[in-house]
Amino acid sequence: MSFFRHITACNSPIDEVFLPWRIDEQVVGLVRPAFIEHLRRFPDVFEFGDAQFRLAPDLDGFEARSEALNEVARALSDAEVISPYMGEPYAVTPGGRESAVCVVDRAAAAYFGVHSFGQHLNGYVKRADGIYMWLGRRARDRLLFPGYLDNMVAGGLPHSLSLEENLVKECAEEANVPEELARNAVPVGAVSYNRVAERGLRRDVLYCYDLALSDDFEPRNTDGEVEEFMLLPLDEVARIVLETEEMKLNCNLVVIDFLIRHGWLPPHHPEYLDLVTGLRQPMHRQGEQ
Amino acid sequence: MSFFRHITACNSPIDEVFLPWRIDEQVVGLVRPAFIEHLRRFPDVFEFGDAQFRLAPDLDGFEARSEALNEVARALSDAEVISPYMGEPYAVTPGGRESAVCVVDRAAAAYFGVHSFGQHLNGYVKRADGIYMWLGRRARDRLLFPGYLDNMVAGGLPHSLSLEENLVKECAEEANVPEELARNAVPVGAVSYNRVAERGLRRDVLYCYDLALSDDFEPRNTDGEVEEFMLLPLDEVARIVLETEEMKLNCNLVVIDFLIRHGWLPPHHPEYLDLVTGLRQPMHRQGEQ
Repeated sequence: MSFFRHITACNSPIDEVFLPWRIDEQVVGLVRPAFIEHLRRFPDVFEFGDAQFRLAPDLDGFEARSEALNEVARALSDAEVISPYMGEPYAVTPGGRESAVCVVDRAAAAYFGVHSFGQHLNGYVKRADGIYMWLGRRARDRLLFPGYLDNMVAGGLPHSLSLEENLVKECAEEANVPEELARNAVPVGAVSYNRVAERGLRRDVLYCYDLALSDDFEPRNTDGEVEEFMLLPLDEVARIVLETEEMKLNCNLVVIDFLIRHGWLPPHHPEYLDLVTGLRQPMHRQGEQ
Repeated sequence: MSFFRHITACNSPIDEVFLPWRIDEQVVGLVRPAFIEHLRRFPDVFEFGDAQFRLAPDLDGFEARSEALNEVARALSDAEVISPYMGEPYAVTPGGRESAVCVVDRAAAAYFGVHSFGQHLNGYVKRADGIYMWLGRRARDRLLFPGYLDNMVAGGLPHSLSLEENLVKECAEEANVPEELARNAVPVGAVSYNRVAERGLRRDVLYCYDLALSDDFEPRNTDGEVEEFMLLPLDEVARIVLETEEMKLNCNLVVIDFLIRHGWLPPHHPEYLDLVTGLRQPMHRQGEQ
């Protein structure tokens, strides 16, 4: 019965070797040694050194680098080394997404251990008896976390769209939120975590948003990703996070951040300071330089 | 012209040696080697080892430990080794203040390098044209940061009071906020930093609160610590933080946290992720075990 266990779950100890790879001397990702072996098929794209590699320096500029990495992603998808090609360009960056030096297909992002960025929105209703929060239940046919509870709107962030554009798009697709209403969403911070996954090292940043809704509004899914929406008292949402594993792993962090910012989780709670610091892991980890 | 410079200023690089000291095998503070020499005057209170020391294990229990440390604080104050005795008991703890194993006088806290806890409150008014924030200007006769701008209410947290009790007390003393109104303050998180100061290592946690105020309310200082209060548009408060050094060092962090949580600071800001993570430094640092 701990909120903190979700932070532990999203930040698995890194007890295997991940090796850095670079573009222009800057570390942009961390990969398993086994993955490097697959990249040796592309000697025009990568230069291999001792326990590291880098993008060939003659691949100069955003476009040339992106094209080369795109070819690699397609070839590795076709060879079933990585998951099926998705056609969604994700930022490859030494820091924030504003500093991207090129893009790589979403399907390859975790294998290359690049930072990945998403947006999660808390849709909530303020009533006389307290705050209520909209949660979605993920469709049963989803590849990841089928049937799990999810934030009202949540999605990955392709590099080709601005934060605002993508949020409006996700709001429309996932919950039928009109653009005018979606633009009322308030950016309220971010949570971040580093997790060893089957595909590689997830180094994720989720930008968080709050959207105050009236009792008139009811979310309705339009893209088939959500089975149903439910409006729950915040106490019940907190109970689900505290006592169950019903919610998608990283959505727990977004809800805990909401509980702290809205004063539901009081500062004398024994986990308070560990939660406040633990929700935002530094974006650089051991092995990076 | 950077918000992040305030996080850098509050987290000076630790480029000198600080040695851990323990109670019951748990590290509760980090001190300069020179300070340990002064503690050798109290062989009944401390046991000295190699590059570390601990509280004598026969000092058992909260009261006995607190009394012993209190004697030490008084004696060192009298000898002018540390600042004048203040009579405010501060928590000595391996973690949060709930885990305190004894107390030490506030005057000695920084020298002993224990965590220190405070509360800072953002008093703000929501108007049709945006958010306004109350700032105080510190009295010219204050020991620290005279004449600097400060959050509407801010104070250290003695161990003898609960978070709620101390906030109500500080609200009354600093800004004449009635108890009923003070109890509307919403706890919204915490910021933390580690700073090498003249006295020793500051390892501070500031619990943050938001208090929405109506246009009718005007803060009035009752304890002489504040010279004047001013209500400023949030744009102007942000400008002061961004462009000037007019605000007390750690209050800048509390305002930056407010700017992020209320959406004033947009997520595409190049410093956004560094700010979100940098505002909350882990409470343990190199040298601790």
